Amino acid sequence: MNIVLLSGGSGKRLWPLSNDVRSKQFIKLFRLSDGSYESMVQRVYRQIRETDPDASVTIATAKSQVSAIRNQLGEHVSVCIEPVRRDTFPAIALASAFLHDRLHVGGEEPVVVCPVDPYVDDAYFEKLKELSDYAAKGGACLTLMGIEPTYPSEKYGYIIPETKDEVSMVREFREKPDLETAENYIKRGGLWNAGVFAFKLSYLLEKAHSLIDFRDYEDLFAKYAALTKISFDYAVAEKEKSIRVLRYAGEWKDVGTWNTMSEVMTERAKGNAIFDDACENVNVVNELDMPILVCGAKNMVIAASGDGILVADKHQSAYMKPYVEKISEPVHFAEKSWGSYTVIDAGCGYLNVKVDLRPGNRMTYHSHEYRREVWTVLSGTGTAVVDGVKTQIGPGDVVKMPAGAKHTVIAESEMIILECQIGENISVKDKTKYPYEGVVDPGIAKADRE
Amino acid sequence: MNIVLLSGGSGKRLWPLSNDVRSKQFIKLFRLSDGSYESMVQRVYRQIRETDPDASVTIATAKSQVSAIRNQLGEHVSVCIEPVRRDTFPAIALASAFLHDRLHVGGEEPVVVCPVDPYVDDAYFEKLKELSDYAAKGGACLTLMGIEPTYPSEKYGYIIPETKDEVSMVREFREKPDLETAENYIKRGGLWNAGVFAFKLSYLLEKAHSLIDFRDYEDLFAKYAALTKISFDYAVAEKEKSIRVLRYAGEWKDVGTWNTMSEVMTERAKGNAIFDDACENVNVVNELDMPILVCGAKNMVIAASGDGILVADKHQSAYMKPYVEKISEPVHFAEKSWGSYTVIDAGCGYLNVKVDLRPGNRMTYHSHEYRREVWTVLSGTGTAVVDGVKTQIGPGDVVKMPAGAKHTVIAESEMIILECQIGENISVKDKTKYPYEGVVDPGIAKADRE
Repeated sequence: MNIVLLSGGSGKRLWPLSNDVRSKQFIKLFRLSDGSYESMVQRVYRQIRETDPDASVTIATAKSQVSAIRNQLGEHVSVCIEPVRRDTFPAIALASAFLHDRLHVGGEEPVVVCPVDPYVDDAYFEKLKELSDYAAKGGACLTLMGIEPTYPSEKYGYIIPETKDEVSMVREFREKPDLETAENYIKRGGLWNAGVFAFKLSYLLEKAHSLIDFRDYEDLFAKYAALTKISFDYAVAEKEKSIRVLRYAGEWKDVGTWNTMSEVMTERAKGNAIFDDACENVNVVNELDMPILVCGAKNMVIAASGDGILVADKHQSAYMKPYVEKISEPVHFAEKSWGSYTVIDAGCGYLNVKVDLRPGNRMTYHSHEYRREVWTVLSGTGTAVVDGVKTQIGPGDVVKMPAGAKHTVIAESEMIILECQIGENISVKDKTKYPYEGVVDPGIAKADRE
Repeated sequence: MNIVLLSGGSGKRLWPLSNDVRSKQFIKLFRLSDGSYESMVQRVYRQIRETDPDASVTIATAKSQVSAIRNQLGEHVSVCIEPVRRDTFPAIALASAFLHDRLHVGGEEPVVVCPVDPYVDDAYFEKLKELSDYAAKGGACLTLMGIEPTYPSEKYGYIIPETKDEVSMVREFREKPDLETAENYIKRGGLWNAGVFAFKLSYLLEKAHSLIDFRDYEDLFAKYAALTKISFDYAVAEKEKSIRVLRYAGEWKDVGTWNTMSEVMTERAKGNAIFDDACENVNVVNELDMPILVCGAKNMVIAASGDGILVADKHQSAYMKPYVEKISEPVHFAEKSWGSYTVIDAGCGYLNVKVDLRPGNRMTYHSHEYRREVWTVLSGTGTAVVDGVKTQIGPGDVVKMPAGAKHTVIAESEMIILECQIGENISVKDKTKYPYEGVVDPGIAKADRE
C-alpha cells in the first residue's frame, strides 16, 4: 500500500502544548505499556506498520516539521516537503509527483491519502487497505472513506451516498451543516467526510497537470510558492462524478481539541500533578518542572508548557482558538534536528535559553548581528567553534560569542547548555547562517577549566 | 501608642505564593490607586501610620523575615527578632523585654499586640487606640478586642463576655467550636478572639519573669531556643481573672486562605491572564512571565509562581494544606536583604538561578564546597570579588567560581545576574560565610569584555 499522510499545522487548539513551530501531532500524550509516550504521528505510523509491514509511507508536510518527523519517526519514512503552505490540493499534487518521480511509483498503482492525526484502532488501517484495493480495481476515479456518524455533528462535512450499502457511489458532498440538517443527512445515510481517499496515481497526476502548469516534481516544487491555495475537496472531489465511498464504523476520533484529547488519554495526569479528593473528571498535562495542585475542580483540563498555562472547562476548551490568537508571546519551546531549545527566562535586554543537543549533532553554524551570547555548559561534553576556532568544552566551561561571531557546538555526549542572549531587540530573525564545511581547524584546544 | 505586630509564618495556605521563606503577609496582592501593589504587612503598617502618626511600631518576627520587612517597610520600623520560633507567649515576652530594655518603654505604658495580617479598615486601628487607652487606665490586667461574629464560624476561638455591653469583663474563653456550639455562643453574646489585646508593659514583664527565668532582653534572647512552645492564650489569658473585652463590629477579615483572599482582591487578575466570556467568579494571580488562559471556569482561584501552580475551587482552597504538605519541591523564590533570587530551571547536576541585586547592595561573602558557579551579567554594573580579587563587571561579562572560592558581588546600578550552579548534590546548606571586611583589594581590574 502506498500511503500519503497529510501533516497539517494548526497550533491553536491544543495550546499551550502546540504552537506555531510544534504541531499537535508531535505532542507525546499517549502512554505506552512500557511507561513511555508516543505522539499522534508516532501512533499512526506504528499502526500502519503493524497492519501492513510493507506499506510505503510518505509524509507530506511543511519544512518546519521535518526535524520533528525525523526525531520521532527516524530516517526511514519518506518526507515530501512543501516549501510553503498551499492547502490540500497543491500538497497532494506535489506528493503525487514526488511518488512518481522520486519513489518511482507507477501510474496504475493505488495511493491512499489520509490525515496524520486520527485517533483510531487497527480496523481503520484494514479499511485503508480495502480503499487501496478498490482504487486498484478501478470502477471509480476516487474511493472515499465515509465515517458512520455517531451523532448529528455540526463539525464535519457529509458525504451523501447513493445507497446505504457497505460500498456505494457518492451522490453529493455537503458542507458542515447545522444540527437539523445534520439529522436529515444521517436519515439519508450520510457519512462524515474524514478526508481519507484513494486513487490511481495516474488519475491524480492528470488532474494536477490539468490544473497546474508543471513538468515534473522538481518543477512543481520550484513553482510551489506561486500556487493558489485550494482544498482537494473543492478542486477535485466536488467536481468529480465517479466517486465511490466505503463505510467505516470502527473507532474514529478527531482529537483536535483538549476536550476530545482528554477522552483518549489513558491517565488523568502526565507530568507533576496532585489532585485533592474533590476533583472529578480532570486531566492535567504538565511539561513544566513545577507541581500543579488541583483542588475541587470538575470537568476540566489543565495544560502547562513554557508557552503558557491553560485552565479550561472541557466543553469550553473547544472554543478557545480566538483567545489563543490574542496571545502574542514568542515560542518558548522548539524541536530541532539536533535536539531542542527552551526559553526559560526573558527580561529587558536579555533572554535565557536552555539548549539540549543530542550526541553527534551540531546546530547550524551562525552569527547574530545585534546580540552577544554566553554559553555555560551544564552537562555533557563537545566542541565549540567560534570564528573557526575549536575548543573542547565540558561542565562549567564558558564560551563567549561577541555580536557578529560565527559559532556552533558539536555534542560528543548529550549536552545541556545555558545560553544567555544579551542585547537590545533580541529576535529569532537576527541570525545569519554559514556553511560549516571549510571552517578552519587549528586543532582542538583545551578550554580554561577550573 | 506602642504596638507590637506579631508576624507569623505559615507557608501553606496561600501556596504557591507563600512558602517556607516567604510568608503570606509579604505577598503584594493589594492594588493601590497608582497601580502599584502592597502586601498585608505594608497595608497594616500604612493604616497604623495614617491612624496614629506617632505610633511606635515593633514587629516581632523570625530572623528569616527580617530582609522582607526591611525591603517592604524600610529602616524606621523596629524589629524584635525571635532567634527560633517558640509560639506567641515567648514571642510576646521577648517583645516586651525588647520594648523595655531597648526602646525604654516604661512599665506603666500600655502596649497593644495584634497580628500583622488582618484585612481591616481604619476603624480597627481607632479601636486599637481605645484598647491602648483602656489598658493605660487600668481596671483590668488585659484588654481584649472581640470581633462581633457575622456568622457562627467554626474557625475561631470565642470570648464569652459577662454582658453584651460595648465594654465588658470576660466570663470565659472557648476553643474553636462546632456549628451548633458556635450558634449557642453567639446567643450568649460571644465574640471572635482575633488575638488582639493590650496591657501595661509591667504586667506582661511580671508574667514573663514568673514563668521564665531570665534577667533582661539580652538574657532572654540568649535563652530563647531553650524555651517551651506555648501560646499566649494558654499561658496567660485563660488563667487571668481580670480581663476586659471591647466589641468591634467593623470590617475584619482573616485573609488566610485563597478563598478569603480573593474576596478582598479588587481586580480579577494580577499578572498575565486572559479570560473567555464563559468565566464566572475567577481570580488569577500569576507571577510567571507566561500567560494563563482561563476558559469556562467558575468560582475558582488560579495562582502561579516559580514554586508551582494552584488551580482550585474557591471553597475547596481552604482545605488544601495537607496536599501542599506533600509537595517537597525546593523553594524557587526568596527575598533577600540585598534583593531576590529566583530558581528558573533545575536539572540533574545543575541549577539556574536569577539573582536581582539592588543598587549599593552586596550578597554575603561566601563559598560552596561541592559546586562551582558561573555568573553571567545580564544587566547592570558592579564589582565581583573572587578570593579577594575585585573585577568590574557589566552586561555580557562572566565570572567563574570554582568550588571553594570565596565570592560576592557589589551592585553599582541594579544588577541582574544569571547564576549557573554546577555539581552533584546542590544544596542551600552548602554555604560557608566569611567576613567581607579585610578582603584584600588589589584595585579594580577591568573584566575581559567583548
